[in-house]
Amino acid sequence: MKTAEKSGTVSRRPPVRLLSSLASLARFRRTAPSPVVLVPTMGALHRGHAALIADARKRAGRNGTVVVSIFVNPTQFGPDEDFEAYPRPVAHDRKICADHGADAIFLPSVAEMYPVEASVFVEEGSLSRFLCGSARPGHFRGVCTVCTKLFHLVDPDVAIFGEKDFQQLAILRRMVRDLNFRVKIVEHPTVRESDGLALSSRNQYLTPEERAVAPRIQAALQDCGKRVETGERSAAKVVVALRRSIDRIPGARLDYAEVVDTETLAPVRRLDHPFTVAVSVFLGKARLIDHLSFKP
Amino acid sequence: MKTAEKSGTVSRRPPVRLLSSLASLARFRRTAPSPVVLVPTMGALHRGHAALIADARKRAGRNGTVVVSIFVNPTQFGPDEDFEAYPRPVAHDRKICADHGADAIFLPSVAEMYPVEASVFVEEGSLSRFLCGSARPGHFRGVCTVCTKLFHLVDPDVAIFGEKDFQQLAILRRMVRDLNFRVKIVEHPTVRESDGLALSSRNQYLTPEERAVAPRIQAALQDCGKRVETGERSAAKVVVALRRSIDRIPGARLDYAEVVDTETLAPVRRLDHPFTVAVSVFLGKARLIDHLSFKP
Repeated sequence: MKTAEKSGTVSRRPPVRLLSSLASLARFRRTAPSPVVLVPTMGALHRGHAALIADARKRAGRNGTVVVSIFVNPTQFGPDEDFEAYPRPVAHDRKICADHGADAIFLPSVAEMYPVEASVFVEEGSLSRFLCGSARPGHFRGVCTVCTKLFHLVDPDVAIFGEKDFQQLAILRRMVRDLNFRVKIVEHPTVRESDGLALSSRNQYLTPEERAVAPRIQAALQDCGKRVETGERSAAKVVVALRRSIDRIPGARLDYAEVVDTETLAPVRRLDHPFTVAVSVFLGKARLIDHLSFKP
Repeated sequence: MKTAEKSGTVSRRPPVRLLSSLASLARFRRTAPSPVVLVPTMGALHRGHAALIADARKRAGRNGTVVVSIFVNPTQFGPDEDFEAYPRPVAHDRKICADHGADAIFLPSVAEMYPVEASVFVEEGSLSRFLCGSARPGHFRGVCTVCTKLFHLVDPDVAIFGEKDFQQLAILRRMVRDLNFRVKIVEHPTVRESDGLALSSRNQYLTPEERAVAPRIQAALQDCGKRVETGERSAAKVVVALRRSIDRIPGARLDYAEVVDTETLAPVRRLDHPFTVAVSVFLGKARLIDHLSFKP
């Protein structure tokens, strides 16, 4: 809403188009002015998504096209995960899209995206062995497959993803390179609450008590940063400190805490070239991820 | 050559362009008139490929664009297969392309197609469990991956494949459907020698003795056809007869002989809906495949 109030050009755009079938998207795409910028989301949009959409608007320019896709993609959820429970506040999402300058929302059905006997998948076999890829088997296969489909359907010049999901970003960049997609992948910095908690649609699963302690995940990462700044070069020692901080958060259960090479995502031992400290924590019903990257 | 002699329009086209880098293809593609028709090949072109190229020319019309890709794709060869030995007669291939109306040959290097740490692959998990997919593990993963790359690089409206590789065709159709590629897949009937042998680049591996008996593969399939026409409904009995015929070919070693559902490619027992009899035979250094489809 802020964006719309600030910028007269945005508020004068025609109303955002709701494209709920592949055919309506194809018709829309045929006459959509270039550049076409895609913001792929699972909906339940928050200020982080709003920032991506506003960035997309800027990159598309006044005459280009911004498409936000909203699709809770079943193939990236594990059998015990929150696919059914995942929030789907369509009217709210539509308003966020309109207020931040989207031209169209692509909102396909699961039935149209995955015909009954779908049997073709896109798989990344290196970067996805670690972190969330190891904790959520099949997750990145689902992500790569649905992004391939979205890239084919929307045919964007640019696609914008949040840096919060840094493993996803690394894998999608690899996918675009290895499969020669024409789309350019752009990352947008993580948006945080004032107390440091990274914005996530899953934050709404938190009780007030859980929400109150959730910023301690980011604080624990910042603490790792201080250790590195004061000369710590052992990944194992950083992980021990990180685990200890997470264990002290009431109600938190560690999923993983790792120090990985920022390029390959493989675990590292010595902190002597670019690395990332990454953590995944279950807090009540929510699984929250965060990370911090370093260039020593 | 015949086509060029027959058709004045073809022989008056500008010389065929040789595009040996991704950058030169991208430059060519930017101004290539639609429709763009792609004929993906591994080179060593024979009359079967020539027929695909001529068909592509017809479908592209006088003003459209025909691109023939020639790429011996390492990822679709097994470790004990003939990747190194596979024939690469570039000058000959170039002439076939020119004579049958191609506008450009895309001839990329392995190094440019597969950067060192390539880790993303496209996999079909249902149709590829059978026949060549079972006999050549990883083969169709390589085929799907390289076709994805070619489709992204060339961005064709239509891609033409020979019906001889019927499992490949079924898998690529499935891939296009499941991943929402915009390309239309077209099949072209198998071209045969006058004695019935299906044309294949691998036929050049045959000694004169092997070449003399090779047509008996197709004859064995025709014999299966006669059994079906005269009322045979047991797949097992057809397979027994087929194996027996292949075993009698001097120097032949059966790879597989199967009766499969033409749609799902899964083995069938009763011949009461569309099925395909498919066979793969090692003859000397060559692995030859052939099949026959039926609609009872």
